[in-house]
Amino acid sequence: MTLLEFIEYAGTFVFAVSGALTARSKGLDVFGVLVIAFVTAIGGGTIRDILLGYTPVGWMHEINFIYIILLGVISAYVFKHLFSHLRHTFFLFDTLGIGVFTILGLQKTLALELSPLIAVMMGTVSAVFGGVLRDILCNEVPLIFRKEIYATACITGALAYILLMYLNSFTMEVNFIIAALLIIGLRISAIVFNWSLPRWD
Amino acid sequence: MTLLEFIEYAGTFVFAVSGALTARSKGLDVFGVLVIAFVTAIGGGTIRDILLGYTPVGWMHEINFIYIILLGVISAYVFKHLFSHLRHTFFLFDTLGIGVFTILGLQKTLALELSPLIAVMMGTVSAVFGGVLRDILCNEVPLIFRKEIYATACITGALAYILLMYLNSFTMEVNFIIAALLIIGLRISAIVFNWSLPRWD
Amino acid sequence: MTLLEFIEYAGTFVFAVSGALTARSKGLDVFGVLVIAFVTAIGGGTIRDILLGYTPVGWMHEINFIYIILLGVISAYVFKHLFSHLRHTFFLFDTLGIGVFTILGLQKTLALELSPLIAVMMGTVSAVFGGVLRDILCNEVPLIFRKEIYATACITGALAYILLMYLNSFTMEVNFIIAALLIIGLRISAIVFNWSLPRWD
Repeated sequence: MTLLEFIEYAGTFVFAVSGALTARSKGLDVFGVLVIAFVTAIGGGTIRDILLGYTPVGWMHEINFIYIILLGVISAYVFKHLFSHLRHTFFLFDTLGIGVFTILGLQKTLALELSPLIAVMMGTVSAVFGGVLRDILCNEVPLIFRKEIYATACITGALAYILLMYLNSFTMEVNFIIAALLIIGLRISAIVFNWSLPRWD
Repeated sequence: MTLLEFIEYAGTFVFAVSGALTARSKGLDVFGVLVIAFVTAIGGGTIRDILLGYTPVGWMHEINFIYIILLGVISAYVFKHLFSHLRHTFFLFDTLGIGVFTILGLQKTLALELSPLIAVMMGTVSAVFGGVLRDILCNEVPLIFRKEIYATACITGALAYILLMYLNSFTMEVNFIIAALLIIGLRISAIVFNWSLPRWD
Repeated sequence: MTLLEFIEYAGTFVFAVSGALTARSKGLDVFGVLVIAFVTAIGGGTIRDILLGYTPVGWMHEINFIYIILLGVISAYVFKHLFSHLRHTFFLFDTLGIGVFTILGLQKTLALELSPLIAVMMGTVSAVFGGVLRDILCNEVPLIFRKEIYATACITGALAYILLMYLNSFTMEVNFIIAALLIIGLRISAIVFNWSLPRWD
């Protein structure tokens, strides 16, 4: 397993746990919890793949993702008290996830020779639209449209990656790490310092 | 017309009637009723086809499905009192529909040489995501996430089909019938004996 | 720039402004406003492209659409008081948009040699499903399912285009203009004379 694969698996696991816990708080049954966990974990990448024309979508060829998500749902069930007491740890995992998925989605788009601007959009979609689909299925206005710096951190990190790519000073791996850390840092700062985007009045 | 085509048409008709009656109960206008009927009838298969990369999606090449759905909407209008008095009959048609669509979706996925686990997922998506889309469009938490054995019957029947396929004891047609009957039997039993999946507390 | 391109850009701009103003009225933050503006502007065409199998979807290859939408969001912000005082002007732009997008979507579908009935559906989807996605993201039953002649005007204009195409009396450009004007005229008449589709009781 490469480091990149490990990070993808870890991010998928964290998203699945997040989805399962959200669905649980909505009083859904076991099937509902499974669907919400799947959609949260792979929804963003699925929308990206469909828009880009990568079909069958990525996770269909990599059955490991399915097992990771099932493991995430079982973990969320077994360790539910643990997770609810470890909100800070949980937040950190979610943040790690969006950092990694943004840059992975961006790279996949650039590989199709599409515009960097489109790549920034697709990177952000990969990271945050799983959560958007989760909220739509749970019949809520998507959380990320309403408060906190979340998608904005992804957009900023994605733009930084594009900039680093043009500067051409480091290897792709280093660019990846810098951009992902920027997203993670921005997201943590937003929570610590209580930043949010302005509403529009 | 083959038997398989007949079953597909009948299932599509039943789903369209179901969608039209739901939309009616929401006070939607004629266009809204049409859209909800379409989405309920072909939404699951459409999501499956998009995820698998079968585009243009199936019903675009088989214009008969469009006529079947229009017929379903007109029938729902003309026989509305009949349908509301025949809840048991209506339930039976819906159950027949999910049994058949699950296995059809599963077979379509296996034909792409994807994993049996993915095929089980895609079969279930084919059968139940039309209803999920219908509920999202009507601004409700999808019914199947909240109560009753519905998707679970599809998953069980799909797994049975995979098992029968590996056992290789019967023809594909026999496997199809056994698996579909299992779904139908489970769904009916769930209603008769008031089974439901546990909520997760 | 051809006339057709100009009309597409203008329509996209108007839809983006419409989406941004709707999102503003929901109290969303800047990111939410951006997403809703994008989804309203390109959501219908995106669904059409995905269903037809045109991927990467259209706007990914025409980066100008992204700039037009950003311009629309900024305009909606800068001229917000102007737009709210100019409801009639705004309505006119929206109406122009659906007229043009319906026929463009229809033509794109016919180019794949799909059935005229499918083309009428896809034309209508192009024009109105951006608004449907906007309403779903804002957690509302889509407006067009509930009142006013809106999609019905698109369907009527699309059918008129098909009829004109078979009559073969005029050039494609003339057919386009007649059909788009029919949609625009029907939509304006519906508002002026307070037409609506019947609810189904």
